Amino acid sequence: MIRSIGQRRVWVLLTLAVWALLGISVSLADEGMWTFDNPPIKQLKERYGFEPTREWLDHVRLSSVRFNDGGSGSFVSPRGLVLTNHHVALTQLQKVSSPAKDYVKDGFFARTEAEELKCPDLEVNVLVAMEDVTPHVLSAVKPGMSDEAALKARKAAMAKMEKESLERTGLRSDVIPLYQGAEYWLYQYKKYTEMRLVFAPEQQIAFFGGDPDNFTYPRYDLDFALFRVYENGKPVESKDYLKWNAKGAGDGELVFVPGHPGSTSRLETMTQIETQRDYALPLVLKTLNRRAETARRYAAQGPEQARQAARIIFGVENSLKAIKGRAQGLSDKNLVAKMQKDEASFRALVASKPEWEKAYGGAWDAIAQAEMKHRQMLKTYPFYSLGWSRLAGIALNIVQYVAEVKKPDGERLEGYHDSELDSLRFRLFSPAPIYPRYEAAMFEGGLQLSLEELSSNHPFIKAVLGARTPAEVAKATVEGTKLADPAFRKSLVDGGEAAVQASGDPMMVLARTIDPFDRQRIKAFEDNVESVETPAGEKIGQARFAVYGKSLYPDATFTLRLAYGAVKGYPMNGTQAPPITTFFGLYDRAYSFGLKPPYNLPARYLERRTRLDLAGPLDFVSTCDIIGGNSGSPVINRQGELVGLIFDGNIEGLVGDYVYYEVNNRAVAVHSGAIIEALRELYDASSLADELEGR
Amino acid sequence: MIRSIGQRRVWVLLTLAVWALLGISVSLADEGMWTFDNPPIKQLKERYGFEPTREWLDHVRLSSVRFNDGGSGSFVSPRGLVLTNHHVALTQLQKVSSPAKDYVKDGFFARTEAEELKCPDLEVNVLVAMEDVTPHVLSAVKPGMSDEAALKARKAAMAKMEKESLERTGLRSDVIPLYQGAEYWLYQYKKYTEMRLVFAPEQQIAFFGGDPDNFTYPRYDLDFALFRVYENGKPVESKDYLKWNAKGAGDGELVFVPGHPGSTSRLETMTQIETQRDYALPLVLKTLNRRAETARRYAAQGPEQARQAARIIFGVENSLKAIKGRAQGLSDKNLVAKMQKDEASFRALVASKPEWEKAYGGAWDAIAQAEMKHRQMLKTYPFYSLGWSRLAGIALNIVQYVAEVKKPDGERLEGYHDSELDSLRFRLFSPAPIYPRYEAAMFEGGLQLSLEELSSNHPFIKAVLGARTPAEVAKATVEGTKLADPAFRKSLVDGGEAAVQASGDPMMVLARTIDPFDRQRIKAFEDNVESVETPAGEKIGQARFAVYGKSLYPDATFTLRLAYGAVKGYPMNGTQAPPITTFFGLYDRAYSFGLKPPYNLPARYLERRTRLDLAGPLDFVSTCDIIGGNSGSPVINRQGELVGLIFDGNIEGLVGDYVYYEVNNRAVAVHSGAIIEALRELYDASSLADELEGR
Repeated sequence: MIRSIGQRRVWVLLTLAVWALLGISVSLADEGMWTFDNPPIKQLKERYGFEPTREWLDHVRLSSVRFNDGGSGSFVSPRGLVLTNHHVALTQLQKVSSPAKDYVKDGFFARTEAEELKCPDLEVNVLVAMEDVTPHVLSAVKPGMSDEAALKARKAAMAKMEKESLERTGLRSDVIPLYQGAEYWLYQYKKYTEMRLVFAPEQQIAFFGGDPDNFTYPRYDLDFALFRVYENGKPVESKDYLKWNAKGAGDGELVFVPGHPGSTSRLETMTQIETQRDYALPLVLKTLNRRAETARRYAAQGPEQARQAARIIFGVENSLKAIKGRAQGLSDKNLVAKMQKDEASFRALVASKPEWEKAYGGAWDAIAQAEMKHRQMLKTYPFYSLGWSRLAGIALNIVQYVAEVKKPDGERLEGYHDSELDSLRFRLFSPAPIYPRYEAAMFEGGLQLSLEELSSNHPFIKAVLGARTPAEVAKATVEGTKLADPAFRKSLVDGGEAAVQASGDPMMVLARTIDPFDRQRIKAFEDNVESVETPAGEKIGQARFAVYGKSLYPDATFTLRLAYGAVKGYPMNGTQAPPITTFFGLYDRAYSFGLKPPYNLPARYLERRTRLDLAGPLDFVSTCDIIGGNSGSPVINRQGELVGLIFDGNIEGLVGDYVYYEVNNRAVAVHSGAIIEALRELYDASSLADELEGR
Repeated sequence: MIRSIGQRRVWVLLTLAVWALLGISVSLADEGMWTFDNPPIKQLKERYGFEPTREWLDHVRLSSVRFNDGGSGSFVSPRGLVLTNHHVALTQLQKVSSPAKDYVKDGFFARTEAEELKCPDLEVNVLVAMEDVTPHVLSAVKPGMSDEAALKARKAAMAKMEKESLERTGLRSDVIPLYQGAEYWLYQYKKYTEMRLVFAPEQQIAFFGGDPDNFTYPRYDLDFALFRVYENGKPVESKDYLKWNAKGAGDGELVFVPGHPGSTSRLETMTQIETQRDYALPLVLKTLNRRAETARRYAAQGPEQARQAARIIFGVENSLKAIKGRAQGLSDKNLVAKMQKDEASFRALVASKPEWEKAYGGAWDAIAQAEMKHRQMLKTYPFYSLGWSRLAGIALNIVQYVAEVKKPDGERLEGYHDSELDSLRFRLFSPAPIYPRYEAAMFEGGLQLSLEELSSNHPFIKAVLGARTPAEVAKATVEGTKLADPAFRKSLVDGGEAAVQASGDPMMVLARTIDPFDRQRIKAFEDNVESVETPAGEKIGQARFAVYGKSLYPDATFTLRLAYGAVKGYPMNGTQAPPITTFFGLYDRAYSFGLKPPYNLPARYLERRTRLDLAGPLDFVSTCDIIGGNSGSPVINRQGELVGLIFDGNIEGLVGDYVYYEVNNRAVAVHSGAIIEALRELYDASSLADELEGR
């Protein structure tokens, strides 16, 4: 890459300077969400004197589980036990609960396998194989194609590969763009859909401290739950599982987090970041705030209403705090200046070499122009939505399903490719309970927001509301529909386009009305943004490889990654946050607020306090680089043993969407010993603890 | 003050706007360090429905004690027990300790009055009377006097009043400028110098968490100590004392803090603030850092050296953290912009009325000009110092003492007026131990810094060092002097100028050499800064009265003030800080750092843990407006009962030098119940607890 001696000197200086700015020098930080094909071997050797073997990596990968709801987990026994967070399990907990049995509030423990509770619609995946298919995807695009045609060709090639892989192996098969599309990988997953609930503590201890303490540390939560994976009615034999080490990891010890970080924006261009800061994040904040208000108003009607709305309130508050943290990060002028400088340096390096400039130099401006259109779209398209109602979402899925499956696979909307249909049908036909009044309240709230944002003359609003109010439409459709019954949904899907077009079900009628608007929205985004930014992103990714080599990790994509770091406190608010917390701290925080919610404790924690080793560890932090989606990830040591369970990041780490600062970005985990202590001393669940500890 | 109807409307608008900006509307915040002649009656009524009586105020005032070392305290029994902080008692604790008995490390408890330990040089004051003497001071300045002459006349008038008051009443008498000199008050103090140490816990629990946790919260410290006041060898009968209420104050309860805040800069002009920000604070930080290094290097030589240097290290680290907090406050552009806006609005109001503009309008520019000279002086004068050595300080005191007392009282240097001589002699002849090697090490460090800052050609350096190094001068003077012996000091003072001039003691020789430089420094400051800023400050203070009335409180002056507020948590680092902490939290923090210093615990806290009510309160926070000097202040309830003991402010409150933010400025206190719990359960000190509880 170095053309002449004369250039070389400038070159080295520039490169060093840029690397220092980007903080990507390999020995500088415990940074990165690494793919398993490209683990940070050099960093691990240099910083920690550790070199993972291929067997170690394979074992860790095959022990790791993706919760398709949006979380992570791991096998922790040879009989299919899977550990994750209570808040990842929350959706399922709510679905298996009823007004009579509130497992969210009271917790759940199956003393025998017979008592384990079937989950209605939980799918988990294990990544069993990975293959670099970049040439296949890129070669689908022929010279002379328009942007729109190229995007179609690329997508068709990906769908084809997924379909072939599924047919060949029976495995769920996804083609994943990495490094902004500079690489494409075919990921093959073993898929499990027979999941049963084994254990969950009371939400009050899993989410002790509630929204105020969420995303903060020191923390005192037992945010864990256990499922068992079945196949054909029997627990699976999980050969690859993590051995439990109840001693945990010591201060300063090297640990790893395999898991599924959802999304980051570290490699995006400044115009994309600015779209987030100035358009997308304010929009999301507005929508989330409104959604939280709507759900809280419903919950305030009574305890059963509160139970029904509990998960959405948790989810929305959690997102609100995370998004506020991101927005605050982007309002930090120093951070933005650093990102601008990094991009300018990268572009200057690209420009310094004529062939690079020719191949990649135009990509940033192309994205910038597409972003101008994207920003315009963000003003109206996000409100083309019925999504606050689960029933309306199901109806639209059905309308699109029957239309899409008639098309060749490569021409379908995203989400309806052959390789995706199994998972889609699994969700679509879920028997999980739906509460009509709650549905109507949320649906009305969503329609009201759309009305306010688009105004009554907008075609979308005219089509949805006509002369009616949001409340009238929500009431009429939710009360009139039979979609709460999974058998009815199945009959529509099985009846195909004819049955769907003929249906007089009011929610189906509404969905048919909305369908063209939804397609218009998708097409506008594809034609104006995606078709430009996909090839431009590929170019920037290729430029990054050209300039920096493959010493980088790609942005998060809710696919399996490996993070590493050390158990370590950090400077906080004028003092130090400790590496671990203890049960003493749980009781301090509870009593320092006079046991008032969200600092109240389940009864057993008061009654059985003296049985606990109060000085024992409860939670801990490490420098591992994580983000939303890593919830439920195991924390493991060099021996591959489980020493903790990721459940949160700290507030200082919320800028992690854009940049990782080792000084105070921390992953917060439950200590492996605390789970055993609680199971044995508080829950009379020694049999379960024995299974975990392999006794 | 309102001249016409036409002006009135503008006027009201302007005034409202400015009040809102200044945050001085009486019902907006628990702000203020109020003098006892002007308590915040209106605020207390409006916010808390409480109206203190004159008796209540007098009782609280007479129960309050000033520690002249730089702290506060209160009478807590009818037999002269005085409660303060361990860190206020620290200087005396070190002075009564020896290599064989380290009361700082091990604590101290006198089981009988016979065992109580005499303090060598501790003076405390009780404010028994206050009188407004503004007209007397201001009338000393005659028309046509130069600035310098006016300053002299003002000072002479003050010294005369102090002297007459002392002679008339036998009370320590200080004339105090308030509101930048818009008021002068004669404060008369009952003075106590026979103080005995009764109880101190181990420093490790008093200062648990050390420098990292200092100025932060949540906190888990038992920072208290008890002295007994004697007169003529017997405990005083302290009629006014605070009854102990071990229940403490509940969340949200109104509490008060009477105490002695040292200094604030809330009413200073922007040029004065900018001098602090750009000149004084960086200078102080540099000096403190160097002093900390020097003391730590000495302490590293061994445990006895560490013991000798412990107090100075604590003091310097404490100051460093406080000053850094102030500097950080002033680096906050929003804060500075607010202060600038407040000043601009105030000046605009003054300018809006011709007679105000004429009387007061020039004051800000006069101060600005004086500050330009002040900034020049700050570059060299602060290094005209031998102050890192206690012996050198004593020597200079003696040289100046014998010269000053020969002059008429009104013409003497500050510190040498008749009314001040008793206290000065008490300190000067203190039998407290002096450790020669420690003295020499610190002296060398201070000289080295002066050398570096002034360079070897500077007259001060030439005079002090000649051809020698700082180490040589320090060693020769400290080893050669007999000033460690209080009797020798007394013989020099009693011998007067003749004895002092004749002394061949090397430290006295050095002090004589330095004396002219010290006087030059004082005179330059008086002539260029003080003589201009004193009348200008008075004008600004008078303008403030004219514009806002006397609804304000003056900047802190280490005189008795009353703060008020409520027990209340606050938003902190993404979550909430609780109103109180518990003993559980102490053990959590200790074990979460693996009992490593500064989070280790004295043995009795580990051995007797099960005797404690761990859910019981330990520390708590309130919105009371405090600052350095308030350490050791009691926290009292409406009934005037003691419910806590101030020992710190939180890190968010360090901008309190410039502005009070109720949202997160908090005063941190030990809970009254925690002191009783510890005395009874950990220290076998029930007799003392009984005395406090009046049993």
